[in-house]
Amino acid sequence: MPVETIDRGRLDLDAESSRVCTEIDGFFARLLVSRGDDGRAILFEAMRHAAIGGGKRLRPLLTVAASRLFGIAWERALRVGAAIEAIHVYSLIHDDLPCMDDDDVRRGKPTVHKAFGEAAAVLAGDSLHALAFEILADAETHEDPFVRSDLVLELAKASGPSGMAGGQMMDLAAEGKSLDLPAITRLQQLKTGALIEYAVEAPCIMARLPAEARTPYRGYARNIGLAFQIADDLIDHAGDPDAAGKRTGKDAEAGKATFVSVFGADRAEQQARVLVNQAIEHLAEHGEEANLLRALARFAIERNH
Amino acid sequence: MPVETIDRGRLDLDAESSRVCTEIDGFFARLLVSRGDDGRAILFEAMRHAAIGGGKRLRPLLTVAASRLFGIAWERALRVGAAIEAIHVYSLIHDDLPCMDDDDVRRGKPTVHKAFGEAAAVLAGDSLHALAFEILADAETHEDPFVRSDLVLELAKASGPSGMAGGQMMDLAAEGKSLDLPAITRLQQLKTGALIEYAVEAPCIMARLPAEARTPYRGYARNIGLAFQIADDLIDHAGDPDAAGKRTGKDAEAGKATFVSVFGADRAEQQARVLVNQAIEHLAEHGEEANLLRALARFAIERNH
Repeated sequence: MPVETIDRGRLDLDAESSRVCTEIDGFFARLLVSRGDDGRAILFEAMRHAAIGGGKRLRPLLTVAASRLFGIAWERALRVGAAIEAIHVYSLIHDDLPCMDDDDVRRGKPTVHKAFGEAAAVLAGDSLHALAFEILADAETHEDPFVRSDLVLELAKASGPSGMAGGQMMDLAAEGKSLDLPAITRLQQLKTGALIEYAVEAPCIMARLPAEARTPYRGYARNIGLAFQIADDLIDHAGDPDAAGKRTGKDAEAGKATFVSVFGADRAEQQARVLVNQAIEHLAEHGEEANLLRALARFAIERNH
Repeated sequence: MPVETIDRGRLDLDAESSRVCTEIDGFFARLLVSRGDDGRAILFEAMRHAAIGGGKRLRPLLTVAASRLFGIAWERALRVGAAIEAIHVYSLIHDDLPCMDDDDVRRGKPTVHKAFGEAAAVLAGDSLHALAFEILADAETHEDPFVRSDLVLELAKASGPSGMAGGQMMDLAAEGKSLDLPAITRLQQLKTGALIEYAVEAPCIMARLPAEARTPYRGYARNIGLAFQIADDLIDHAGDPDAAGKRTGKDAEAGKATFVSVFGADRAEQQARVLVNQAIEHLAEHGEEANLLRALARFAIERNH
C-alpha cells in the first residue's frame, strides 16, 4: 500500500476517533440523567463517571469503521457502539472491585467504587449492563426487529459466560498457574476478544450479511483482538502507570501467564505485528471503504493508554 | 366466588407451582453446563447453586398463569419465566454481597459469595444477567422477532436503572431515613414491582395485545407486587429465619422505612388483603382461564418463605 494511503487512513482515523469519542460521550450524557431526587442520583452519577470521558473507544470505533463497508448509517453504528461500550464499561467497573482486581485508578480517574462506594459500583455496572440491551432493542437502533433481536442475541453471547464474563472467570482461575499458549489464547478470546469480535459482527448483522459472507470480518476481528491484547500485556509489562492511566505490572505481580510471559516482550511485539498484517489481509476484497479498518488495525498495537 | 372454585384454583396453583419449579430447575440444569475444564467450572457451579432448587418461582408462575389468558404455549411462557428468574437470581446474588446486604444464607443455603467467593459471585450474577437476554432473543422463545425484541426492551427497562437496579439504589440511599408512604411505594415499585409487572406484561407482549388492552393486567400486577412486598416486610418483621430461609429483622436493624414500619403490622396485613382483592377485580372480564392468576394473588400474601 502506498505511503500516501496509509497517511490518509491515519488522518481519517484521528478524525473519526475524535468524532466517536465526542458522540459517545454525548450519547451517555443524554442517557444517564436522573430525573427527580429519589435516591438514584448517585447511581446515575456513578454511571456517568465511568462511561463519559474515558478510553479510546476502540469498540465503537470498530463498529463505525466496519459499518462503512456496508453503507450503514453513522447514527445506527454509533448507537450499537454505545451499547458495546456500556458492556465494556460495566465490566471495567466490576473488574476494578476490591474482590476482583482491586484497582483504585482507571482511565486516570478514581475507580467507581473509590469515588462512590462498592454498592453503588455494583449497581452502576448492573445498570449499564441492562442499558446496553435496552439500547439495542430500541426501534431507533434499527427498524428491522429481526436485526434488533439478533444484535441482542449475539451481544448476550459475547458478554456472558461463553464470552467476556466466562473469560474473566478463566482469568481469575488462572492466577499463579502456568498456562500454555492455546489456553492463554482461548482465555483472551473470551475475556476481551468476544466483545471486540462483536463490534465487527454487529455491522454484519445490520447489513443482513449471510453467515458465510462474514468469515473475513470475523478473521479480521479475531486478529485485531489478539493483537490488542498483546499490546495491552506489553503496556502492563512496560509499567508506566501515567501513560497507561491505570496501575501496571499487575500481571507479573499476580503471577498471570500472558502472551508476554510466554513469548518475551520482543517476540510478543513481533507476533502482534504479524496479527495486524493478517487482519489487514482479510480486507483484501475491499477498496478505500476499508481504510479506516486498516488504520484501526495498526492503531490497535500503537496505542499508549 | 363459590368456595368450590377457590379450592379448585388452589389445587390448580399447587399443581402448576410444582410443575413450574421442576421445569425451571430442569431448564437451568440444561443451560448452566460448563463444557471442558477451562477454569469456568466454578462459574457454572455458582450459577447452578443460585438458580436451581430455590424459591417459590413467583415470577415464572405469574408468566405461566397470565399466558393462560391468551392461549400462549406453556413452553414459551416457561422460557420467558426462566429469563425473568435469571434476572431475579442475579439480583439476589449481587444483593447478598458483603458490600450490599451482606447475607450469609439465602433460600436456606449459603449465599453464592459464601460458597464460591465474592469474585465468582459478581461474575455469576453478571453471567445470569446476560443469559436472561440470550434466552429472550433466541428464536425458540418466539418466532416473531418483533415480539422477541419487545420482550428484551421491556425486561431491560424493568431490570435497569429505571426499574430493579434503580430501586435497589433507592433502597440503599433510604437506610436510616424516614420515607413517607409515596416514597416507599415508589421505591418498592422499582425494586420488586417492576420485575413482577414484567412477568405479567411479557404474556401481553407475546399475545401482541395493543397497549390500551393491557391496562387491567398492569393493574393486577401492580397490586400483586405491592401486596407481595408487604407480605415480605411482614415476614422480615415477624422474624422467623427458619421459615423465611434467610436472615430476618433486617429492615428494623438497618432503620429501613417499610410498609410495616409506617402502617404497623396489623394495618399492613389489612392493606395487603385490600390489594389482593383489587388485583382480582382487574380480572373481572375473565372466566375460568384467570383462576390461576386469582389463586396466585391470594398466594402472594399467604406464602411463608
